[in-house]
Amino acid sequence: MKVGFVGLGIMGKPMAKNLVKAGHDVTVFDFNKDSMKELTDAGAKSAETGKAVAEASDVVITMVPNSPNVEAALFNENGIAEGLTAGKTVIDMSSINPLESQKFAKRLAEQDVDFLDAPVSGGEPKAIDGSIAIMVGGKKETFDKFSDLLGVMGGSITYVGAVGAGNTTKLANQVIVALNIAAVSEGFALAEKAGLDPKMVFDAIHTGLAGSTVMDAKVPMIIDRNFKPGFRVDLHIKDLQNALDTSHSLNVSLPLTAEVMEILQVVKNDGNGSDDHSAIAKYYEKINNLKIEKK
Amino acid sequence: MKVGFVGLGIMGKPMAKNLVKAGHDVTVFDFNKDSMKELTDAGAKSAETGKAVAEASDVVITMVPNSPNVEAALFNENGIAEGLTAGKTVIDMSSINPLESQKFAKRLAEQDVDFLDAPVSGGEPKAIDGSIAIMVGGKKETFDKFSDLLGVMGGSITYVGAVGAGNTTKLANQVIVALNIAAVSEGFALAEKAGLDPKMVFDAIHTGLAGSTVMDAKVPMIIDRNFKPGFRVDLHIKDLQNALDTSHSLNVSLPLTAEVMEILQVVKNDGNGSDDHSAIAKYYEKINNLKIEKK
Repeated sequence: MKVGFVGLGIMGKPMAKNLVKAGHDVTVFDFNKDSMKELTDAGAKSAETGKAVAEASDVVITMVPNSPNVEAALFNENGIAEGLTAGKTVIDMSSINPLESQKFAKRLAEQDVDFLDAPVSGGEPKAIDGSIAIMVGGKKETFDKFSDLLGVMGGSITYVGAVGAGNTTKLANQVIVALNIAAVSEGFALAEKAGLDPKMVFDAIHTGLAGSTVMDAKVPMIIDRNFKPGFRVDLHIKDLQNALDTSHSLNVSLPLTAEVMEILQVVKNDGNGSDDHSAIAKYYEKINNLKIEKK
Repeated sequence: MKVGFVGLGIMGKPMAKNLVKAGHDVTVFDFNKDSMKELTDAGAKSAETGKAVAEASDVVITMVPNSPNVEAALFNENGIAEGLTAGKTVIDMSSINPLESQKFAKRLAEQDVDFLDAPVSGGEPKAIDGSIAIMVGGKKETFDKFSDLLGVMGGSITYVGAVGAGNTTKLANQVIVALNIAAVSEGFALAEKAGLDPKMVFDAIHTGLAGSTVMDAKVPMIIDRNFKPGFRVDLHIKDLQNALDTSHSLNVSLPLTAEVMEILQVVKNDGNGSDDHSAIAKYYEKINNLKIEKK
């Protein structure tokens, strides 16, 4: 398939490479020349603009940081939209505000261009080995047409509803992850201040009802004082901002999400925005004058 | 072993029965005559008071609702302490304030009586099949002496530190469970209001970083509108009250736990105190005028 790929960042680069490896005819564009060279070395064609990518492709994938970047990639001068013709498809795999996804879909529909929002979950290693989870919103027939293509980049490809549903699902995911990190942080802050060994507490509770993927993945890292990302505090702030913007647009109140957003902001204030999001624990350490670590 | 058992409630009754089945010489006491008869029918001896239980036993297990009940069982007139002599042991398996556990241990030490706090996690079915998790605080040598006995009642028996550590671990567990339920409630409230099918969202995210035992055990129940306990809202309020009492005594701030406590109170205000604690979701439904259910 003739596939365009715009946005060769930490995630986009390995995802585009997997498309090339799978034998697709891939045309790429990014402002970063080094990333472009890496992809052309791997066998992709390069284009000078988003417009040129779209002209060369049947389907264009975008993978950029946030809603304004998607809007710019699609609709700026020499952007993707200018190279699209009726019957082509855009698949935005960025994690953005779902209400923005719906606006982009509407604008592209005026050109008879289909749109899927297909954000991913899982970090760089899973992007490299093609095992990220992909949550897809859009028309079911469009999903069916491209699910094999998405399967080249991801391990689990799930259709979740109309356009915007992919990003809504991703935001629900990010809300739950942030709160689950805050949950273990509160539980282990209490245990630490009471003088317990957090490793023994972990052993006692991680297989029970308090167990979670966050517990298994993050608590051992917190105890080992390893805050290497993983997924950065800065990015989780972006996601929760999108979650709160979306919830307020929909008249939904998410009080704990709002509070964890402020907690993440404090972590960032302290210069830890590039830490793994498990650094939420550092907020609890700061307010309670303690450190969750091995005894 | 000559084992005393005081408190034959929903959990205590099957736990005591498992001790009888395992061949121990069990003497029981409870104010409820029906529960007493059930145990004597099963082969236990009955006693008229806690004092009589202690006189007949080398080790006395208590399994009652909360700290004041443990205090009464131990130290009231004709209570357990009156029947204890040097070298005997009390194992309190109730879920209580760990600072109270420490006080009880101190008072019993004056009689040269050892004390373990060994609260459990897991509901009635796990108590029946002997697979509850038991978190134990106390002297390591006392734990070693009784770990086989505890193994008759539980599947995982974990030593977590000095007296009080069992209950601190249990409270950390309950803090995390409550926050994990609030986490899925916020995520699914957002998805529901955006018009998504919660079952599809569940399928998309439950195996990723947002996954948890709470997600797998409770979200399908919420979607099916099944709030049969499980573990009751009323009891989780008790546990979070103990967590907050303990955290304030230790100068630890747990802001999200405090907020979930208020959320549980609202659920109780609405007459749902006997619901499963997953009814935390009902608070989000109430404030956001929605219902998380199958599409």
